[in-house]
Amino acid sequence: MNSIKIREAESTDMDAVHRLIVELARFEESEASVKTSPRTLQQDGYNGSARFKCWVAKNKDEIVGMAFVYPRYSTWVGPVLHLEDLIVTESNRGLGIGGLLLDEVVKYGHSIGVKRISWEVLDWGVKRISWEVLDWNEPAIKFYEERGARVMRDWDVVQLDEMGIKKYLERL
Amino acid sequence: MNSIKIREAESTDMDAVHRLIVELARFEESEASVKTSPRTLQQDGYNGSARFKCWVAKNKDEIVGMAFVYPRYSTWVGPVLHLEDLIVTESNRGLGIGGLLLDEVVKYGHSIGVKRISWEVLDWGVKRISWEVLDWNEPAIKFYEERGARVMRDWDVVQLDEMGIKKYLERL
Repeated sequence: MNSIKIREAESTDMDAVHRLIVELARFEESEASVKTSPRTLQQDGYNGSARFKCWVAKNKDEIVGMAFVYPRYSTWVGPVLHLEDLIVTESNRGLGIGGLLLDEVVKYGHSIGVKRISWEVLDWGVKRISWEVLDWNEPAIKFYEERGARVMRDWDVVQLDEMGIKKYLERL
Repeated sequence: MNSIKIREAESTDMDAVHRLIVELARFEESEASVKTSPRTLQQDGYNGSARFKCWVAKNKDEIVGMAFVYPRYSTWVGPVLHLEDLIVTESNRGLGIGGLLLDEVVKYGHSIGVKRISWEVLDWGVKRISWEVLDWNEPAIKFYEERGARVMRDWDVVQLDEMGIKKYLERL
């Protein structure tokens, strides 16, 4: 484990981060669904817009894992943090890298200040970190549940994709 | 249907919007989980921070429904829109109000510009609108699927709540 270092990702890491995204998509037989590129990740994360925050795990000099988050907003608890991706390259599984990355995410979620003016207390830390998991991915579910997360098996994800949006609007 | 009007919510609508949030939470036997207030919604949505966008449905002079969205970021397709809540008060169900609210959300998702500098095309409209649904809520699932949305029953929602974050950090 000594050779593993976690740090915040920089713009120049987006090539390696994108490779991890594509590796996972290929595993899910969805490589063609990846429309982003290292360049769009750089634009959306680092060129003024900062739509997400990312950490990378380095094993010696190679980036072998990443965690990717952004804020969401719950009508029940207010600002929350969403973990979009937690990826460790196949050759580096079982070394505890996913856990180290998740540690950073939880520490970050706890540390960010959500200042409320004229509110009774200054409220630090999001009240929830959320993510999504495939219901047949038992190792991942075990990993998350061991760390205190609740897998809400009765909530499903719904998506209206680009073609769906187009067709929806044609019917109006 | 003539008496139903949909419009963007204003800061002063947050009392009514919060009542709808609480009504749904009560239906899900989770009223105590609602930690937001009309005041925090005003602060987070209208006092400079704009963490979300909201529409309300009015029946005559009363707010009877709302849709509540914010941006997310997909590592596959880039910026996407998330529908956090779509609520119609019980006495006004079956009038088509949910459909009218969803229409606004989809039109908005299609219209917002996601400008990419030095990208081949100027890309307008998000590539996806996502939300979550309870897997036993068959009327809602039917409503969404009829409109072209895909209910991904193999993806579950995972949450680490405030107490979970605290306990997680204590174990580090």
